[in-house]
Amino acid sequence: MTFFYFVQSSPIMSQVTEFNEYRQRMNATILAADNKVIKRFFNLDTNTYAAGALDVKTKEMLGLACSMVLRCDDCIKYHVGKCFEEKLTDEEIYEIFAIANIIGGSIVIPHFRRAVEYWEILKSEAGSGAHDGAALAAHKAEHDGQPAA
Amino acid sequence: MTFFYFVQSSPIMSQVTEFNEYRQRMNATILAADNKVIKRFFNLDTNTYAAGALDVKTKEMLGLACSMVLRCDDCIKYHVGKCFEEKLTDEEIYEIFAIANIIGGSIVIPHFRRAVEYWEILKSEAGSGAHDGAALAAHKAEHDGQPAA
Amino acid sequence: MTFFYFVQSSPIMSQVTEFNEYRQRMNATILAADNKVIKRFFNLDTNTYAAGALDVKTKEMLGLACSMVLRCDDCIKYHVGKCFEEKLTDEEIYEIFAIANIIGGSIVIPHFRRAVEYWEILKSEAGSGAHDGAALAAHKAEHDGQPAA
Amino acid sequence: MTFFYFVQSSPIMSQVTEFNEYRQRMNATILAADNKVIKRFFNLDTNTYAAGALDVKTKEMLGLACSMVLRCDDCIKYHVGKCFEEKLTDEEIYEIFAIANIIGGSIVIPHFRRAVEYWEILKSEAGSGAHDGAALAAHKAEHDGQPAA
Amino acid sequence: MTFFYFVQSSPIMSQVTEFNEYRQRMNATILAADNKVIKRFFNLDTNTYAAGALDVKTKEMLGLACSMVLRCDDCIKYHVGKCFEEKLTDEEIYEIFAIANIIGGSIVIPHFRRAVEYWEILKSEAGSGAHDGAALAAHKAEHDGQPAA
Amino acid sequence: MTFFYFVQSSPIMSQVTEFNEYRQRMNATILAADNKVIKRFFNLDTNTYAAGALDVKTKEMLGLACSMVLRCDDCIKYHVGKCFEEKLTDEEIYEIFAIANIIGGSIVIPHFRRAVEYWEILKSEAGSGAHDGAALAAHKAEHDGQPAA
Repeated sequence: MTFFYFVQSSPIMSQVTEFNEYRQRMNATILAADNKVIKRFFNLDTNTYAAGALDVKTKEMLGLACSMVLRCDDCIKYHVGKCFEEKLTDEEIYEIFAIANIIGGSIVIPHFRRAVEYWEILKSEAGSGAHDGAALAAHKAEHDGQPAA
Repeated sequence: MTFFYFVQSSPIMSQVTEFNEYRQRMNATILAADNKVIKRFFNLDTNTYAAGALDVKTKEMLGLACSMVLRCDDCIKYHVGKCFEEKLTDEEIYEIFAIANIIGGSIVIPHFRRAVEYWEILKSEAGSGAHDGAALAAHKAEHDGQPAA
Repeated sequence: MTFFYFVQSSPIMSQVTEFNEYRQRMNATILAADNKVIKRFFNLDTNTYAAGALDVKTKEMLGLACSMVLRCDDCIKYHVGKCFEEKLTDEEIYEIFAIANIIGGSIVIPHFRRAVEYWEILKSEAGSGAHDGAALAAHKAEHDGQPAA
Repeated sequence: MTFFYFVQSSPIMSQVTEFNEYRQRMNATILAADNKVIKRFFNLDTNTYAAGALDVKTKEMLGLACSMVLRCDDCIKYHVGKCFEEKLTDEEIYEIFAIANIIGGSIVIPHFRRAVEYWEILKSEAGSGAHDGAALAAHKAEHDGQPAA
Repeated sequence: MTFFYFVQSSPIMSQVTEFNEYRQRMNATILAADNKVIKRFFNLDTNTYAAGALDVKTKEMLGLACSMVLRCDDCIKYHVGKCFEEKLTDEEIYEIFAIANIIGGSIVIPHFRRAVEYWEILKSEAGSGAHDGAALAAHKAEHDGQPAA
Repeated sequence: MTFFYFVQSSPIMSQVTEFNEYRQRMNATILAADNKVIKRFFNLDTNTYAAGALDVKTKEMLGLACSMVLRCDDCIKYHVGKCFEEKLTDEEIYEIFAIANIIGGSIVIPHFRRAVEYWEILKSEAGSGAHDGAALAAHKAEHDGQPAA
């Protein structure tokens, strides 16, 4: 039998879903290995973004900017998703993108393009009747420290 | 039910075309957001490689070497394309590759492989009668600061 | 014969003053070279942190977090100084430090120590009667794009 | 004419095979270019991991940890494969993963996920009757400095 | 009043002492700020290097190699000190240095020089009668998560 | 006996001399350890910049640009010195600086300042009658692979 790399009929949803499903599956495998340092680090990573002296929106903006200058595509997707949940406007997220590009230089641009693509997918998904909120919910259901939630 | 990952009939062209089309499309989306810092930075990025005290060929070689040590695949593709336009020989581009590998270490090797693959595609494309110059033209039509040119 | 490394009578001020004076002097040398790309980039860097959809405080927090994960001591000092001007509390700046440490890992810790040292110097300086506001003023007088202001 | 990117019926093997075949093919292209610095560097890279004061297992663990903190997916795959050959246990490799995550921070996590995926594929492949040892053999047959071995 | 930065009569000890004292002092300041994420991260960092499936010597070698490729001088000093406590031979530590140089490239060399300088200081200190064990003890008394020990 | 950190009466020369002497001394220590991988890597590093399809001037410009985007101060000093030997003009070296700043972003700026300071020292030294050529000669006498030359 031969089979083929599956490309979803809804290209708009696929990237969000694919990203979330892969993360959940691999996080579950990782946590099952039961390494204490890793489990505590994943848990600590989750707690870092909880509201404190700074609110969640500010913390997620910080997470996004850092992910961009460090050029980590999956980290960027995760925080773009959280910024979407936190209802950032286009103007706000582009000012984060601008800071990251100036600090990190033109090597950030390819990651910036993929960040914008993901942001547009999330907006498009949320705006369509049928799938309303699905992309947003997918992100809410998912966090490094709570892979099985 | 089976689905297929569609690969263009010209596998040699696809990587060049895919890269250029994605860049143009996302650059257009980015510039449409009308963030002044980003627009000026994209424009400045373009101007940086214009002939001055150093000629375009030298500047593109610098861009390629920097992109390699920073391990930015898309940046590498872009500058490999420009070095191809500037008619670098195999010997010349391999000396750039050598410097980047020595400075950046063995972690550069995977990016070096992809750079060589792209370089070979550009040469192969330019050498074939039917598509002569197409890869080269695709690169010429494309620049960060002028996505819609 | 012996020579001495001279340390100012105010050890608390010296690091701030030394940092600012070196930056101003070298920025002046750089701008005197009259390279258009560099002058525009320095100017753009300044504009990036101006109030827009995001306020200055948020932008400086983003600048600080990015500088920390990229482990750029001078960039950290600059943004710690700006965050001091923007009257961040200890609780707020430590939450930025926490995010940067978790994202960037334990290699951020040495830079974190120096950031805290600089933050303490700024607080100590501002709190003393004689020098009140001097550290803050030194930072206000200084910006990449306006070295001679 | 349209044709398709073929994905093997054994998804478990494909990633290992694909990785090894691409490396071998591109290494052969690179070495054919006959740049002396590159050839010596590839050869030196191979020699670095030979048994000396430290045994091969220790050196491969060092190679894996470094590849993870530098976030080089292909380098990680290569050294995960070598650690598999060296018969590391799950407990051992997860302690390497833990060190890399703590040192390099949460930006290592996406690469960690892919490392775990590759590790699971190697284990799964080795454990199945039909393909026993194939993944392991594929790795043994392959090294940067000996692409045609 | 003017005063002077005093450099100890024993230049060999000063770098070790200076490094340890600065770390202890700043770690104490950091922990006094009582940020939960940071305290847990410092504690987790300590636990990461405890004996488990891999022994302490192996873990410290991994810590050193990672610190070198990430070019973190203070991290390198810390792990060189731990490797000294773990009684690594010159041959062993130079094989770690070799791996780090090959993986990370020639940009690692300046950090390699400083690592060798620190290693030589530790050996010299341990070998002298009067100060026997002092450098080693200074390192043992010091760890990120236990700054006040 | 107490003694003090010596600061030369000629601050302009000290940085060049100090840099070269430290490198030579530590390179000698490193090579004395007789690790084959390291010796071959140091030798290979030297050979990388020899004239080939690209001339020495071009290769040193590539080395400088890469060192800047990777933010390695000692590497920058070394290649600024070589570019000085190769008689680059101010206009030329500033165009390299511009490319490095745009590619690597504002985090390159502090390293750029130090590069300019070193460049000015070399020019100043070469222009003074008494020391004519000393800075240049110091650089010529020194190379990673030939520390005792």
